[in-house]
Amino acid sequence: MTHTVLSSASREVIIGFDRPFCLIGERINPTGRKKLAEELAKGQYYRVAADAMAQVDAGAQMLDVNAGVPLADEPKILAECIKLVQSVVDVPLSIDSSVVEALEAGLAVYRGKALVNSVTGEEERLESVLPLVRKHAAAVVAISNDEDGISDDPDIRFAVARKIVERAADHGIPRADIVVDPLVLPVGAMPGAGRCLLQLIRRLREELKVNTTCGASNVGFGLPNRHALNAAFLPLAMGAGLTSAIANPLDAGVTTAILGADAILGTDANCQNWIRRNRPAAPVAQRAAS
Amino acid sequence: MTHTVLSSASREVIIGFDRPFCLIGERINPTGRKKLAEELAKGQYYRVAADAMAQVDAGAQMLDVNAGVPLADEPKILAECIKLVQSVVDVPLSIDSSVVEALEAGLAVYRGKALVNSVTGEEERLESVLPLVRKHAAAVVAISNDEDGISDDPDIRFAVARKIVERAADHGIPRADIVVDPLVLPVGAMPGAGRCLLQLIRRLREELKVNTTCGASNVGFGLPNRHALNAAFLPLAMGAGLTSAIANPLDAGVTTAILGADAILGTDANCQNWIRRNRPAAPVAQRAAS
Repeated sequence: MTHTVLSSASREVIIGFDRPFCLIGERINPTGRKKLAEELAKGQYYRVAADAMAQVDAGAQMLDVNAGVPLADEPKILAECIKLVQSVVDVPLSIDSSVVEALEAGLAVYRGKALVNSVTGEEERLESVLPLVRKHAAAVVAISNDEDGISDDPDIRFAVARKIVERAADHGIPRADIVVDPLVLPVGAMPGAGRCLLQLIRRLREELKVNTTCGASNVGFGLPNRHALNAAFLPLAMGAGLTSAIANPLDAGVTTAILGADAILGTDANCQNWIRRNRPAAPVAQRAAS
Repeated sequence: MTHTVLSSASREVIIGFDRPFCLIGERINPTGRKKLAEELAKGQYYRVAADAMAQVDAGAQMLDVNAGVPLADEPKILAECIKLVQSVVDVPLSIDSSVVEALEAGLAVYRGKALVNSVTGEEERLESVLPLVRKHAAAVVAISNDEDGISDDPDIRFAVARKIVERAADHGIPRADIVVDPLVLPVGAMPGAGRCLLQLIRRLREELKVNTTCGASNVGFGLPNRHALNAAFLPLAMGAGLTSAIANPLDAGVTTAILGADAILGTDANCQNWIRRNRPAAPVAQRAAS
């Protein structure tokens, strides 16, 4: 059984086939969020703190932290965000950047075992990111594209994932510390993309025996009521073997779909998480104490 | 490819692995609906007509019709309901009764090719229901239990399903006209029931090559927010191979989950059903015309 162990200073999360699905909160990311981008560029982190607490309250087991603001000092901002987020919530973090120096700055201040997001199959990324992951004894998201871009052939995407796992082994990083992102393409634009993705997830689990993650909300790109598609996509992907996703925990459709699929798949022992999260709300007086 | 063809006087529905999922509306059933039971016993069918139209408007491709009111004349009531429903909607029907005489009365008045719901693996049921199905050239739901009840061993449930398929063949009923119900047991009461069911659905598709159906709402029996579990269950079951279900089309969570899973699995060609059902509502003036 492949267990990917992540931690903060005080809490451990295990991603695995026999574990509850790991929902990684996607909100701390300035892409498409103009106010957040402006605040990050000025070094203002109140919204980051609020987003961190709200996502954990809503059920996120981990948080992704991305500080990619164009023309800003990303390494400095990402490191400050990581410190801030670790001071207000205790879940492990995914340190998300396409800039190697930013990953390095984030890892330098991180307390615990982080998930580095991400490495691809591109030669230059492999040789810059994997040594960092090894140095900090972190885990890493492996995105299944390379110099040739994203293939629509699932065999090629599988081969890229295998190449990253093998290269990581050369660097002394065990398979359990690689979480493969098979890449979610929009089903509205590419007929067959959904079924192809589900087959790829199944192969990654059965043949390569790795944990997996994805940016779930791409699936409905370009379609109406796009967010509602996520609530159908996640159980389908979990049934095929997906063990984590970067998604929005504030979307009740997403969290309910994940908890429901965990209850049905038996990864939520005795449905205890389902029961806890679906209890009638406590009276206001009780809630005011928290 | 196994295609189960059902029809009314004017419309055909095909259940199949390459087809959009077939949602069979469950509402016309007096179990747990006191007013409906009283009305059926009196021969009042306004609510049946309203339920029929509402379910078809909400997206049901077929309707289940059950008239099982204790101490009432079920064959007569069921036949009247079938005639009434066929006069107000044009979808094919599932004729639902545990009383063979009621199935017979329903089939006698039905126009088109019906789905008989149901036969089990019990010797006496097999030999009374299958000749009826053959005589009317109907299709039939095969429930995977027998004299020994419902086994929690998926191998035994699979064997019962295979026995029914073989016996049906002896009666001249082709495999394509058998829709197997693998039986949904509540996951809250039986740890492992969900995963076991999904494996059984997959075997029924891959080994026995039959279409499948189920009463989806049993999955959450005894758990809080039970209906929300269905929206997670249906995509999981569709990913494993389920091709139809008897469920409530008036529950938006259910219809959205089904349409979403169809879009992702590619059984909704070019996502056309998803787009049509998720278009912004037409202005009131336009809608008033319908």
